[in-house]
Amino acid sequence: MPTPRPSVSPGDPVAAIETPALIVDLDAFEANLTAMADYAKAKGVRVRAHAKTHKCAEIAKRQMALGAVGVCCQKVSEAIALVAGGVTDVLVSNEVLHPAKLARLAALSGEARIGICVDSDLGLDRLLVAAAGAAAPIDAYVELEVGGNRCGVTSTADGLALARRIAASNVLRFGGIHAYHGGAQHLRTPDARKAAIDVAIARSAELAAALVRDGIEVPVVTGGGTGTFINEAGSGVYNEIQPGSYIFMDRDYADNAADPSAPRFRHSLFVLTSVMSRRADFAVIDAGLKAHSIDSGFPAVAGRPDLAFDNPSDEHGIIRGSDLPALGDTLRLIPGHCDPTVNLYDWIVAVRGEKVAEIWAVEARGAVT
Amino acid sequence: MPTPRPSVSPGDPVAAIETPALIVDLDAFEANLTAMADYAKAKGVRVRAHAKTHKCAEIAKRQMALGAVGVCCQKVSEAIALVAGGVTDVLVSNEVLHPAKLARLAALSGEARIGICVDSDLGLDRLLVAAAGAAAPIDAYVELEVGGNRCGVTSTADGLALARRIAASNVLRFGGIHAYHGGAQHLRTPDARKAAIDVAIARSAELAAALVRDGIEVPVVTGGGTGTFINEAGSGVYNEIQPGSYIFMDRDYADNAADPSAPRFRHSLFVLTSVMSRRADFAVIDAGLKAHSIDSGFPAVAGRPDLAFDNPSDEHGIIRGSDLPALGDTLRLIPGHCDPTVNLYDWIVAVRGEKVAEIWAVEARGAVT
Repeated sequence: MPTPRPSVSPGDPVAAIETPALIVDLDAFEANLTAMADYAKAKGVRVRAHAKTHKCAEIAKRQMALGAVGVCCQKVSEAIALVAGGVTDVLVSNEVLHPAKLARLAALSGEARIGICVDSDLGLDRLLVAAAGAAAPIDAYVELEVGGNRCGVTSTADGLALARRIAASNVLRFGGIHAYHGGAQHLRTPDARKAAIDVAIARSAELAAALVRDGIEVPVVTGGGTGTFINEAGSGVYNEIQPGSYIFMDRDYADNAADPSAPRFRHSLFVLTSVMSRRADFAVIDAGLKAHSIDSGFPAVAGRPDLAFDNPSDEHGIIRGSDLPALGDTLRLIPGHCDPTVNLYDWIVAVRGEKVAEIWAVEARGAVT
Repeated sequence: MPTPRPSVSPGDPVAAIETPALIVDLDAFEANLTAMADYAKAKGVRVRAHAKTHKCAEIAKRQMALGAVGVCCQKVSEAIALVAGGVTDVLVSNEVLHPAKLARLAALSGEARIGICVDSDLGLDRLLVAAAGAAAPIDAYVELEVGGNRCGVTSTADGLALARRIAASNVLRFGGIHAYHGGAQHLRTPDARKAAIDVAIARSAELAAALVRDGIEVPVVTGGGTGTFINEAGSGVYNEIQPGSYIFMDRDYADNAADPSAPRFRHSLFVLTSVMSRRADFAVIDAGLKAHSIDSGFPAVAGRPDLAFDNPSDEHGIIRGSDLPALGDTLRLIPGHCDPTVNLYDWIVAVRGEKVAEIWAVEARGAVT
C-alpha cells in the first residue's frame, strides 16, 4: 500500500522531515545530471538513462530534458508506471516471456516509444504475437551476452538469427544490439573495467558487422553503466549509454577507483535517520533493513567518516564511533546500494541545502512484474 | 505507489500468477498458526504476535482469532495501517521520540488498545505530552536490555525509575517489562539459545522483583521470538511471547537446529519466480534484490535441494544445478529472511494446493516511520 506523503512542505527545514526518509540533495543531483549530459554530448553518444535506479517519472523527465533520448527499465510494470507519469520513450532492457505482460507492453506503444530485448526464439515468438496487436511498432533489441553471465545470446550466429526474424517482421522495428555488462560496473580499478568492456566491445562489434553484412541496419548499440560508460562511449561501437546510478552515487560505486578521464559524481541520495536509543558505546538509529539495502555492504555516514554503521536489524541500525550523536540527533546514511534502497520508498524528499524543496513520487516502487 | 492487485482470482491455477510474486501456502500457514496457538495455550502464556513479519491486517486478525491478545509492530506508521485494517490491539515494541509520531499514536488510542516502549526519560517526557491528548490511556512498557545490545535500559535502577514515572501518570498505564533478545533468535543450537535467554530471564526477573518491592504491579513481561519462545514461555517470568516469523519460516530460521520440545513450523512463504533466460549451465530467474532480501543469505529453492541460487542482481537471480528448469518454468524460492522480503510487496497471494485462494493486502508495507 502507498505510504502517506511525507508531512513536510517546500520551505520547511530538513529537520522537520520524519525519519527514516529518503532524501536527495538537489545541488549534488543536478550537478550529476549535467555532468553526464555534458560528457555524452562531448563524446557524441546518446544517453538512455536507467530508470531502474530511481523508478521516478520526475527524474526521468529531467534526464530527458537534459538530452537523454529516453530511459531504460527492467520490468513491464515499471514501464507502465513511468509512461503513466509522462515519460515518452522507455526501453525494457530485459527479457519478458509472459504473454499478458507483453500484451500490456504492446498496449503502451500507443502512448510512448517502447522497446524491449529478446534473447530466445520463444521470447521473440511471444513478442511477435503481442506486437501484432500493438498501437505502434515496438523496438526489439537483440540482447548479446558480453561477459556479465546473465541474459543474452552467446554467439553471433544466434544474434544474427534473432535479428533476421525481427527485421522481417512488420510489427517490430529492429532496435539494435543490447550489450550491457553488469558485472563490470563494480570492478574496482579502471584497468579491470576497461579489460572487461574491451571484450564487450569486441563481441558487439562482431555481431554488428555480421548484421551489416547481412543487410540489417544497426541503429543502436547500447549498454554501459555508471562504472564503465566512459569505455563504451569511447569505443566507436556503442552509440548509446545506459547509466543509472550516477544521479545518486551509492557507497558501493564510490568505492570504485575513479578513472581520471571520467566526470566526477557526488553523493546525492541519503537515508535521513534519527538516534532513537543511546548507550555509552553506541547509538541506535531508526533505519534498518527496511530503510536501506545492505546487499552491497553497509552504508556510510555522510560527513562523519569517524562513525561506522553496524549490525542492522529490520528496523534498527547501530552506530559506533568516538563522538556519538545524541538521542534525537539525525544522520545521513549513504546507502550501500541505491537501486534496491529507492525501491523501499514511495516518496523522495528533494532538499536544497537545509530546506525541503520538492517531494517526488516513486511511481514504479515495487514494480517487479 | 501501490502496485496493481495481482491479476488472478480465487480458483485460478498458481501457474496463472505473474512472477515474481509473494505467495503463501495456506495449509502450511494455518498449521503454523495453530501450532503456536496450541503451544502457548498449553504453556499458559499469552501470544502477542509480531506483525513486523507480515505487515498484514488479515494475518493479524487470524492470529487474534486463534487467541493472540494482539500484535506488536515497530513503527507508528505500521500501527496506523494495522488499526485501519481492523486490528484492535497493537503494541509498538520499540522507542519513538518524534512528537508528531507520538501524537498520531495517541490519536489511535481511540480506535484500538495501544502500547509503546520507552527506554529514556526524553522518550517518556514526550510520550507523556502526547498521551495527555489521547482518547484512552496508553500502555507504556519499560524496555529492558537483555543481551540484544540494541534498545532498552541497562540497569534495574533505570528501569525502576521509568516505571515509577509511568505508574504515577494518569494518562499512561504501566504495561510491564519489554524484554526481547533479538540476537538470540538465530543462535544455531538450542543450548546457545537457552543460555542467552537464561540471562534475559534473570534480568527480567530482577527488574520485576524490584518493581513489585516498590509497589508497582507488573502485568506483563513480554519478549521471545520464533527462535527462543520456548525458553521465555517456560521461564515462569515471561507471561507473553512475541513470535513473528513462525507463520512463514524463512530459510534462515530453518537453519536453526530445532529444540525437540518446540513445535515444528513449515515453510509457508515463497517467492514465485520464472526462468526468463537459459544457458547450458545456468538459468536466469526474474527475482533479484527487489523481489527478496538477501541480508540473511540467499534463498533456497523449495523442493529442489539440488538447485542453488547464486549471484543476485537487482532484477535477476542465477540458478545452478544439474537438472535445470527450462525457459518459462517456475520455481518457489524460500526467502533468506521473511520480514524485509514481505516489505517489498503490496500483495500476498494465498494459495491452497495449486489454486489461488485469496489475495491479501500488505497494508503496512513500506511503513518505516
